[in-house]
Amino acid sequence: MNTTTHFLSEAIQLASDNVGGGGRPFGALVVRDGVVISRGVNEILATNDPTSHAEVNALRAASQSLGTPNLAGCEVYASGQPCPMCMAAIRMAGITRVRYAYSNEDAEPFGLSTAAIYADLAKPFAEQSMYIRHEPISPEPTLYRAWKDAQQG
Amino acid sequence: MNTTTHFLSEAIQLASDNVGGGGRPFGALVVRDGVVISRGVNEILATNDPTSHAEVNALRAASQSLGTPNLAGCEVYASGQPCPMCMAAIRMAGITRVRYAYSNEDAEPFGLSTAAIYADLAKPFAEQSMYIRHEPISPEPTLYRAWKDAQQG
Repeated sequence: MNTTTHFLSEAIQLASDNVGGGGRPFGALVVRDGVVISRGVNEILATNDPTSHAEVNALRAASQSLGTPNLAGCEVYASGQPCPMCMAAIRMAGITRVRYAYSNEDAEPFGLSTAAIYADLAKPFAEQSMYIRHEPISPEPTLYRAWKDAQQG
Repeated sequence: MNTTTHFLSEAIQLASDNVGGGGRPFGALVVRDGVVISRGVNEILATNDPTSHAEVNALRAASQSLGTPNLAGCEVYASGQPCPMCMAAIRMAGITRVRYAYSNEDAEPFGLSTAAIYADLAKPFAEQSMYIRHEPISPEPTLYRAWKDAQQG
């Protein structure tokens, strides 16, 4: 069994165990240099937290384990295709490698695909189904300037 | 002062206070029927959690306050243009209305824009800068079938 198959099989096992506990079928690992840094499963039903996806939970645990929000050099192995929230979270944590076992095509017949959400979120704001509006409050970005000044102070 | 200006000004104040405490310049509110349900600020520096954005924190707090991951009927007011992670999180929580005061254009000169990340994440996986791979482990989505069976059991 190669490394990819090994870690993806573990992510699937996490997801399967989560189903056994009444949760949703998603599990993920954060791995660095071949070592598992953290594991996560979908805990939305247990916690009511809509952001409690397997990948987000694994990222959060990895950041606590490593003591930094910068997870550059880590890789994510997910049982299923990460949703747009998780993919963005992975990327913004500095991770550049993601592998998943089940695709949105696999998930579609079971109502678990996020393909439609991906398609909508890829559009310009004005064309998305959400009402998303830029409402300028002040002509100058004084907030950001104050932050920059504080950085340099 | 109209409602939008009122809530966006409060989000900016939250962000400004966060800068005063050494944090990043982002704040957000979840509002329902004109009432503030929750508030959040960016706590990445304080917590090391890379997902600790203002909007995600506000969503998590709202879900705990309301006792449900489904925030349909709520609205988000953010000091700055939500990043792709937050926009996806907002949408998947069932929220359909988002307003923000400072745009990515405002943020760009200060290194706070997520426009490049938006553009990259909108591309097909194979064209993105991240290495994202579907690695099928089993020919059948047995995991998802087991979950579906558990739902109907």
